[in-house]
Amino acid sequence: MARTTSKITTGDAKKTSRTNDPARTKADILDVATRLFARDGLSGARVDEIAEATSTSKRMIYYYFGDKEGLYCAVLERAYLGIRRLERELDTESIDPIEAIAAIAAFTFDYQADHPDFARLVQIENIHGARHLRSMPGIRAHNAPVIAHLSRLLQRGEQSGAFRTGLDPVELHWLMSALATFNVANEATFSYLFKSDAPPADNGTHRRALVVDAVLRWCRPEPGHAASKA
Amino acid sequence: MARTTSKITTGDAKKTSRTNDPARTKADILDVATRLFARDGLSGARVDEIAEATSTSKRMIYYYFGDKEGLYCAVLERAYLGIRRLERELDTESIDPIEAIAAIAAFTFDYQADHPDFARLVQIENIHGARHLRSMPGIRAHNAPVIAHLSRLLQRGEQSGAFRTGLDPVELHWLMSALATFNVANEATFSYLFKSDAPPADNGTHRRALVVDAVLRWCRPEPGHAASKA
Repeated sequence: MARTTSKITTGDAKKTSRTNDPARTKADILDVATRLFARDGLSGARVDEIAEATSTSKRMIYYYFGDKEGLYCAVLERAYLGIRRLERELDTESIDPIEAIAAIAAFTFDYQADHPDFARLVQIENIHGARHLRSMPGIRAHNAPVIAHLSRLLQRGEQSGAFRTGLDPVELHWLMSALATFNVANEATFSYLFKSDAPPADNGTHRRALVVDAVLRWCRPEPGHAASKA
Repeated sequence: MARTTSKITTGDAKKTSRTNDPARTKADILDVATRLFARDGLSGARVDEIAEATSTSKRMIYYYFGDKEGLYCAVLERAYLGIRRLERELDTESIDPIEAIAAIAAFTFDYQADHPDFARLVQIENIHGARHLRSMPGIRAHNAPVIAHLSRLLQRGEQSGAFRTGLDPVELHWLMSALATFNVANEATFSYLFKSDAPPADNGTHRRALVVDAVLRWCRPEPGHAASKA
């Protein structure tokens, strides 16, 4: 209701309408904070600048999130929950395990390519030794389903002979995360140093195919085993 | 203040001897600057703090490197030359191409694990959009040999039937770099979220085997092709 009018009203009126909707106010703060923490890091980002870029006040940020670290933790937690929620929505239980793993690898690649702030935030948290993650109750439980999901797919693929036996779902997740992360986080230096001749437009598609291919080749049985199954 | 005084007492004699040896003075500055740029980033690192941690002066840093960006560029260039120089020293021309690729993948993994500042510096340069790399004459030429090296190995492996045909050495280098980088740069968050039960002591060995295995599986021919060669 207020949304349609807020587009044509001044900033002041927007502030009033937003503070009446705590969920929207918080989401707005988190959107802006995600962008600025990803750009400037935890120590570099300034709450003043975040407040200025939202339609709320510094006082409101402290009211909702306590302090800068509290805000950073909320940003990081939301970033992890975001990718995990979409992973859970992938319907892979009813399709062939090879197609399913290909779909998850492609999803991971695309998600990270479309959300470069995610890779940056995770890098920043690594610089801080995962200290803030350790303070978040439930963050591991929120991340566990992706491993359970991969584990079921690996089991199905093992039974059908499509995959090697005894593959570790954590290793599979590690491979997919590593390739999807590097594609976003290190693209500027890598493409300058090594890929000058390739047309940049095709980059994403080729790279995604490379990642899906590398992941599937890791899953598939040895030539000898495949032959014995065939 | 007490900290500065204690440094000066031991530092004075060292300062005199070092300033008489420009190569050592520069190397000392670059060692310290590598550590502090990797820790604090380009904007976060302070020349005052770098000078204090070396056995030279801020004035000498400006004399040798011009300004903070000049120092950062020298650090970054030296970091790239370091890994490329050691890669060139690997003697892989006379061994089996599978063993050779395994050795290069393992070297890349170990080098990055032993030099976490390298991955951090490259991340920082990516945050800056590779802007400084672009200003370094010869940096691409210095990085080109690793691709030429992989290209020769892929050709040998293709001829012997050990590898698939038409593999791209840049893609191979990308895979190895991605896995080696993620292992260092994202280990804190990944191991906290996903690997709590594994004994940390074994982590490096297992992970390295995973990386070498994933890279070799990407290189090897399809089961059908392998069978026809065998």
